[in-house]
Amino acid sequence: MTAFASDNYAGVHPEVLAAIGAADQLGHVVAYGGDPATADAVAKVRDHLGPEAHVFFVWGGTAANVLCLESLAPAAHQAIICAESAHIYVDEGGAPERLLHRKLLPVPTDNGKLTPELVATRAIRFGDEHAVQPAVVSITQSTELGTRYEPEEIRALADFAHERGMLLHLDGARIMNATAAQGISLREATRDLGIDALSFGGTKNGALGAEAVVLWEDRFAEGFAWRRKSAMQLASKHRYVAAQIGALLTDDLWLRNASHANAMAQRLADGVRDLPRIKVTQEVQSNGVFVMLPAEIREALYAEGFVFYVWDEHTGEVRWMCSWDTTESDVDAFVAAVTKHATA
Amino acid sequence: MTAFASDNYAGVHPEVLAAIGAADQLGHVVAYGGDPATADAVAKVRDHLGPEAHVFFVWGGTAANVLCLESLAPAAHQAIICAESAHIYVDEGGAPERLLHRKLLPVPTDNGKLTPELVATRAIRFGDEHAVQPAVVSITQSTELGTRYEPEEIRALADFAHERGMLLHLDGARIMNATAAQGISLREATRDLGIDALSFGGTKNGALGAEAVVLWEDRFAEGFAWRRKSAMQLASKHRYVAAQIGALLTDDLWLRNASHANAMAQRLADGVRDLPRIKVTQEVQSNGVFVMLPAEIREALYAEGFVFYVWDEHTGEVRWMCSWDTTESDVDAFVAAVTKHATA
Amino acid sequence: MTAFASDNYAGVHPEVLAAIGAADQLGHVVAYGGDPATADAVAKVRDHLGPEAHVFFVWGGTAANVLCLESLAPAAHQAIICAESAHIYVDEGGAPERLLHRKLLPVPTDNGKLTPELVATRAIRFGDEHAVQPAVVSITQSTELGTRYEPEEIRALADFAHERGMLLHLDGARIMNATAAQGISLREATRDLGIDALSFGGTKNGALGAEAVVLWEDRFAEGFAWRRKSAMQLASKHRYVAAQIGALLTDDLWLRNASHANAMAQRLADGVRDLPRIKVTQEVQSNGVFVMLPAEIREALYAEGFVFYVWDEHTGEVRWMCSWDTTESDVDAFVAAVTKHATA
Amino acid sequence: MTAFASDNYAGVHPEVLAAIGAADQLGHVVAYGGDPATADAVAKVRDHLGPEAHVFFVWGGTAANVLCLESLAPAAHQAIICAESAHIYVDEGGAPERLLHRKLLPVPTDNGKLTPELVATRAIRFGDEHAVQPAVVSITQSTELGTRYEPEEIRALADFAHERGMLLHLDGARIMNATAAQGISLREATRDLGIDALSFGGTKNGALGAEAVVLWEDRFAEGFAWRRKSAMQLASKHRYVAAQIGALLTDDLWLRNASHANAMAQRLADGVRDLPRIKVTQEVQSNGVFVMLPAEIREALYAEGFVFYVWDEHTGEVRWMCSWDTTESDVDAFVAAVTKHATA
Repeated sequence: MTAFASDNYAGVHPEVLAAIGAADQLGHVVAYGGDPATADAVAKVRDHLGPEAHVFFVWGGTAANVLCLESLAPAAHQAIICAESAHIYVDEGGAPERLLHRKLLPVPTDNGKLTPELVATRAIRFGDEHAVQPAVVSITQSTELGTRYEPEEIRALADFAHERGMLLHLDGARIMNATAAQGISLREATRDLGIDALSFGGTKNGALGAEAVVLWEDRFAEGFAWRRKSAMQLASKHRYVAAQIGALLTDDLWLRNASHANAMAQRLADGVRDLPRIKVTQEVQSNGVFVMLPAEIREALYAEGFVFYVWDEHTGEVRWMCSWDTTESDVDAFVAAVTKHATA
Repeated sequence: MTAFASDNYAGVHPEVLAAIGAADQLGHVVAYGGDPATADAVAKVRDHLGPEAHVFFVWGGTAANVLCLESLAPAAHQAIICAESAHIYVDEGGAPERLLHRKLLPVPTDNGKLTPELVATRAIRFGDEHAVQPAVVSITQSTELGTRYEPEEIRALADFAHERGMLLHLDGARIMNATAAQGISLREATRDLGIDALSFGGTKNGALGAEAVVLWEDRFAEGFAWRRKSAMQLASKHRYVAAQIGALLTDDLWLRNASHANAMAQRLADGVRDLPRIKVTQEVQSNGVFVMLPAEIREALYAEGFVFYVWDEHTGEVRWMCSWDTTESDVDAFVAAVTKHATA
Repeated sequence: MTAFASDNYAGVHPEVLAAIGAADQLGHVVAYGGDPATADAVAKVRDHLGPEAHVFFVWGGTAANVLCLESLAPAAHQAIICAESAHIYVDEGGAPERLLHRKLLPVPTDNGKLTPELVATRAIRFGDEHAVQPAVVSITQSTELGTRYEPEEIRALADFAHERGMLLHLDGARIMNATAAQGISLREATRDLGIDALSFGGTKNGALGAEAVVLWEDRFAEGFAWRRKSAMQLASKHRYVAAQIGALLTDDLWLRNASHANAMAQRLADGVRDLPRIKVTQEVQSNGVFVMLPAEIREALYAEGFVFYVWDEHTGEVRWMCSWDTTESDVDAFVAAVTKHATA
Repeated sequence: MTAFASDNYAGVHPEVLAAIGAADQLGHVVAYGGDPATADAVAKVRDHLGPEAHVFFVWGGTAANVLCLESLAPAAHQAIICAESAHIYVDEGGAPERLLHRKLLPVPTDNGKLTPELVATRAIRFGDEHAVQPAVVSITQSTELGTRYEPEEIRALADFAHERGMLLHLDGARIMNATAAQGISLREATRDLGIDALSFGGTKNGALGAEAVVLWEDRFAEGFAWRRKSAMQLASKHRYVAAQIGALLTDDLWLRNASHANAMAQRLADGVRDLPRIKVTQEVQSNGVFVMLPAEIREALYAEGFVFYVWDEHTGEVRWMCSWDTTESDVDAFVAAVTKHATA
């Protein structure tokens, strides 16, 4: 199978697997996070994101997002403004509503990116008891559409939010892809731009199943231990989760993995961009390529065993994702197949 | 450190770790459970628990319990009768209330075990709109107090529940320990006794972090995929979770691990039972030993580096747990230390 | 004060107040609905809406909506498609999310009315475990924008929903206004068009605080008593709530009140429609008039003591509502004031 | 019917009904609480309970309790310690769990009254992330068993709670009965004893359906408007709810009603206390009488048309409630009937 379906199709990077093995060698150790592997991973996250960061590990990205949002918006009447294409809005099976009982206020966008002007359309009715109160702006970096916020765009959103008493969350399921592409540090890509809470994604970058919640202010972290436990995300054999994040932050593994996935997406986009009957619909700024192509080409590719998903069931737009384990030959074979069908 | 604190202090059994490695060798595969390792693990669970079983993997035991309960009691006014010592009642940080918004009706017990008579104290007010409606009886096997239901005791509870329109859930975080001790099959220990939903625990038995929800009727499984996803327990790289359960069910690993842990607990109990100033408070029927001992002995043991927890902060009763990786020399060293202090 | 702010500014109609007094004369009676006034009110609702209707009284309209939606969509992953202007989406302080933990899927509309085509944009991803599952279409009649669905428009929505396994809820906070305007019966306006659950509004029509949930199928009503109680909407002195609905359905009081309010809105719209600088933005089809007017005219009217609300804080569009107690002289005085400022 | 079933069987006191009529005479006024009747009622509550009190009106007592608890314990992991017989624990259909998703920690009592010693059994595991954190002690005055806390008993509970970082809620559905019996002011019975939040009950005292949430600290009231709205308890025609509380606090109506109900309960208890085969099981300290009597006497009384409820379906204990509208002849007729059957 050659798949461009999801960065979750990828396996675990060998260095992460080795770190799991190393955590195992610790023997019989304290559960629930009181172990050396967790301490090491927390230290590594703080090295990258700041010594004041509160760091909590969880299994999944949905949980990281939900727990970040709850930390920033603890009351049920507080609402979260997000892009209509945000993962939290469309792809988490209603988990934010289920766990938090909070309203998400979606904003249509062209490219998955919010702007202060777009946020302003939902940042209304402050003080009106009949309306939920916008409390958090949530953005995704890189976005669900493969695009990327420039640092100054995030800074502008942070300023806009903070001036109105709102906070800024970043869904960083692919923050490593975006940051690698920008050539800045993870701290420069997040807290330095005004981010208040970060879902720090490990899984898509090469982990087995590990994400971190990063909160930079004590008040946001108060009570977090119970929020995580009651959200059923406190791993008992915690070292194995923490060690994965530790591995990604060792020897720039996160950067190597993200840069490679990004390069594969560029190679793919470059290979198909000028083909007839094919249209790359979004700027390719991380590890995903969004394409409009005729249904018969899509079906022909499926018939040859290529795997990918339709993104928009109304328009037929498809998404091609690359990951740390996508090879140049995977890409080249796929480009060749697309070329053959597009020019047939 | 020699710890008898928790079976979660144990590492991952080498055969489980090998299975994770084997899942990795599958390469780039479908996410969210559409992979061969998941299919294999589901088949193995069905081999043990019945071909009609619906099987869903999750990361944690709290989640397995909560999702089982939701499957049996889908409406908010339905209540769950459980022992006051049940893990779902006291040790899950309020997760059942948070996720399900349902009332748990606790019953005090002497030994962690419910009986029809005890359940009857809470199985009241059927049809009264002012009261939550008992819908599920939840038991733990082996119990949180290291005791064990005999098969006929579970059957009596199942009959009692079913006759009143209630269903029976089994928190099987340590079902393997109980079943190993009884010398029956996993199916004989669960569905054959009338269990409707089973939290099938892998983590305490030697997994990294893997549990299964097992439901034997189609109606309980309807909508489960969304319940799991919105409860933030759908692993994206699903194969690695499933493979752990698959490994435990291969070559009787579950039985070997559970039997060993049980034997270590017996060895420990046998070693201290007749000591002065020490009282084993519960029958030792799986892998835990509950003991009343003077605070000065407890502190002396702590001072020597032994690790274990106080179970009851009012009485000072302690819990000593054994796991698959507890060694005979661990036990013997601990017995020697307890003996030294008890007879000093 | 002359107010066109809300039909909730109106008092209680004298016939409703008399019915409350009559309920009081019953003396010491069974609480929670086991009284003669409740039996009488239920019978009257069934006379109008069908003998098979399950009828439950609650205090408020938000509760009627939330409980209808829960009855049609009992599982947390089920979603509700509604207009972006729907009261349940924008004006209930997040109550649907808080109580039901369900996602509402809003659709932008020009006039507050859904169509099958609009619903289709949200009726997607059936069977996809990552997405909430559309289960209910909720419409408001008359709409929050003062417009009205024609019977055949509702029928088309019902057919569209039912063909896709969805159900149709009608927020009837002003169903009496719409039905009065159409000259059909309440049954013809609801169940006969395929409505599955109705929030039957009494308060805006002249009650003190009384709404009914009407469900036409047994399966939707199962467990409702507990849903109402746990939603904190079971009135202990229930007769006083029920008697209000009974009064509205006696001697066509509902029709008299609604027709009058509608007529006042028409009179108001007719009085201002052709004025310069004023634009009536929606068809006036029940008891509300939506108007775009310059801010200085709005402020001048406020300065003279007229009370009404800005509907859209971005555009400045205002809403003028009429109620059963709006008088012709109220309207005429207001029209005169608007005319004076618009033509100044 | 002569009923001793519930103080909710009583009608509305004529002075309350008159106040509703007076609120109606206000004509067309601002909805949702911006009206003169609300302002007047808030002022009256503050006259009785303190000028710093935040006062919010709601329809029902369950809602008052739930909203008080949410105000004191805003996070989901915070737990509420209460008597096992507390209304919030057994008679609200699970509303606290449904709305708040919080665990109630019940304590068995002999007489419905908590003590510091009893609270201490549940005030454990502070700081343990696996356990919910006790944050509120909730007591009922007068209790569900007709007993009454002495002021110094409440003070002791307040001190105990506050010393441990917990807060004290009082379910005052019958606070007027208790306070009337004690001959102190409402403030002396609540805030002066250390109560942090009060559910101030009007309905059982003679209202139609009106309760108040009273919070004495700004921090507890922050966000309350949204909590009430999203809990579906913001009355649109708010004046009619507020006016009821206003009436009860005018000319000592609350005191007259409560004193009368209490006196009727004493008369009833005095009439039956020394009868053979009858045992008054609780001290009669407000308006309820709890009695153990043979089933055949109970059935004989039912057969004669007397109405009352079995309180404990296991023991057959019954509850006889008196209300503001219970007459001496009601009591005397009932005493005569009980006497006849008990001495037959």
